[in-house]
Amino acid sequence: MDIKSENRCFGGVQGVYSHASGATGCDMTFGLFLPEDARHIKVPVLWFLSGLTCTHENAMTKAAAQGWAAEAGVALVFPDTSPRGEGVANDDAYDLGQGAGFYVNATQDPWAPHFRMWDYIADELPALLGDEFAIDLDRQAITGHSMGGHGALTLAMNLPDRFASVSAFAPIAHPTQSDWGRKQFGAYLGPDESTWARHDATLLMRDRGFDGPVLIDQGSDDNFLDLLKPEALSQAMAARRQEGTFRIQKGYDHSYFFISTFIEDHIAFHAEALHA
Amino acid sequence: MDIKSENRCFGGVQGVYSHASGATGCDMTFGLFLPEDARHIKVPVLWFLSGLTCTHENAMTKAAAQGWAAEAGVALVFPDTSPRGEGVANDDAYDLGQGAGFYVNATQDPWAPHFRMWDYIADELPALLGDEFAIDLDRQAITGHSMGGHGALTLAMNLPDRFASVSAFAPIAHPTQSDWGRKQFGAYLGPDESTWARHDATLLMRDRGFDGPVLIDQGSDDNFLDLLKPEALSQAMAARRQEGTFRIQKGYDHSYFFISTFIEDHIAFHAEALHA
Repeated sequence: MDIKSENRCFGGVQGVYSHASGATGCDMTFGLFLPEDARHIKVPVLWFLSGLTCTHENAMTKAAAQGWAAEAGVALVFPDTSPRGEGVANDDAYDLGQGAGFYVNATQDPWAPHFRMWDYIADELPALLGDEFAIDLDRQAITGHSMGGHGALTLAMNLPDRFASVSAFAPIAHPTQSDWGRKQFGAYLGPDESTWARHDATLLMRDRGFDGPVLIDQGSDDNFLDLLKPEALSQAMAARRQEGTFRIQKGYDHSYFFISTFIEDHIAFHAEALHA
Repeated sequence: MDIKSENRCFGGVQGVYSHASGATGCDMTFGLFLPEDARHIKVPVLWFLSGLTCTHENAMTKAAAQGWAAEAGVALVFPDTSPRGEGVANDDAYDLGQGAGFYVNATQDPWAPHFRMWDYIADELPALLGDEFAIDLDRQAITGHSMGGHGALTLAMNLPDRFASVSAFAPIAHPTQSDWGRKQFGAYLGPDESTWARHDATLLMRDRGFDGPVLIDQGSDDNFLDLLKPEALSQAMAARRQEGTFRIQKGYDHSYFFISTFIEDHIAFHAEALHA
């Protein structure tokens, strides 16, 4: 593992690291904020999965999360959103290929060899964090934005007992019924839609739900409401009597200004679930 | 004036605007955060002047300032750091020309026609803000980072009664004795060093000081300490018995992670001086 940078931040350290990933078959870069407490004890960790076009860097620099994480004594991990590099397949569209991994294991060419973001986030990166840093893998929570909100919700519901809590900012809530989903699942997973269902937060909420609290924030003035389909997830949460909160935030859009406004609430929500 | 973007943010609006500037003879872009209070009343304003290579965008997206400004009911303005465009002189170096205006009025060719950032920040932009937005020009404060900390301190000391308070993050504190200063003042102002003195915070502090509180934060692990020369300003502040606080923050560097860590303190400091 290589240290790309480490900056003192809110008494802790905001680091950027890269490593050769077995899951994706390429070098992967991630950001990790460790609060001051991590000098002495293992700390709980909150995953932040980012959206289309993002790298590890966007949320790390724009979400204004570190101050609240420092206060709560929680680490933050900011993974990249796809494999990258010259040998990795790509597409001219912003919403397919590099920067658009959609948190699945691709089974179709040309994507299958590298686009295994599910395995990377579910297995490889947590193991690395547990080995290399003062992180308590028994206390994990997860959040994300847009495509990353989709990732957070689908990972949380597919991996029972892994995460104490899950939240999302403007998640792609029903990708099997959206152009943010059908295109990518078709490309990565192939035409058999039965393989798509476990990657759709609304279908998972209908089928099984989440054994813990859920928090969703969605801006009323988001430009992408037709693609995100928040009403499908909201309906499914209410129908299941899912423990949780679904909020429409009036006037907010899809930007990091929306995220930074409400990140304090999300970190407090996760900190409580993590007993941090 | 053109609206480039407006995003809801902490109950207020983070806008980006451009306008034809008479001072610089080109289009200029700035960011402006207006807290919710500005819907009803004129609010005080805190200027944030940015450093070398920055545009209006860096601090606006990375300093995590809006939440604290919203809480205090203070507007934030994020000006660009130089004139820009094809007709504007430039240099291959990162520290001269576009992105490196140094908050002076250039008198030397090829810089003189456009590089008039002093007039832009001291006169033109405040007038525009007062005309177009709910901003109370009788309640202004100023801060900045690196080259922008130099700008904040020199504007504050040269314009008595303009600013209620001044602060800086890792300012270029003594540019007449630094390679971050001598090169640029020579290029923009010419070889007569007597014209440089009013653009040196340490010399101004020795000569006149500031009639209000001053707050300086400097990271102990800043890579640019030899260029910033914080000890010169610290000595001058103490010798003058300047009202204020000079802090060395252990382990912090020159990055926005340093700024975001301490921006809460700076905004609280200015809000108190502004009676916000």
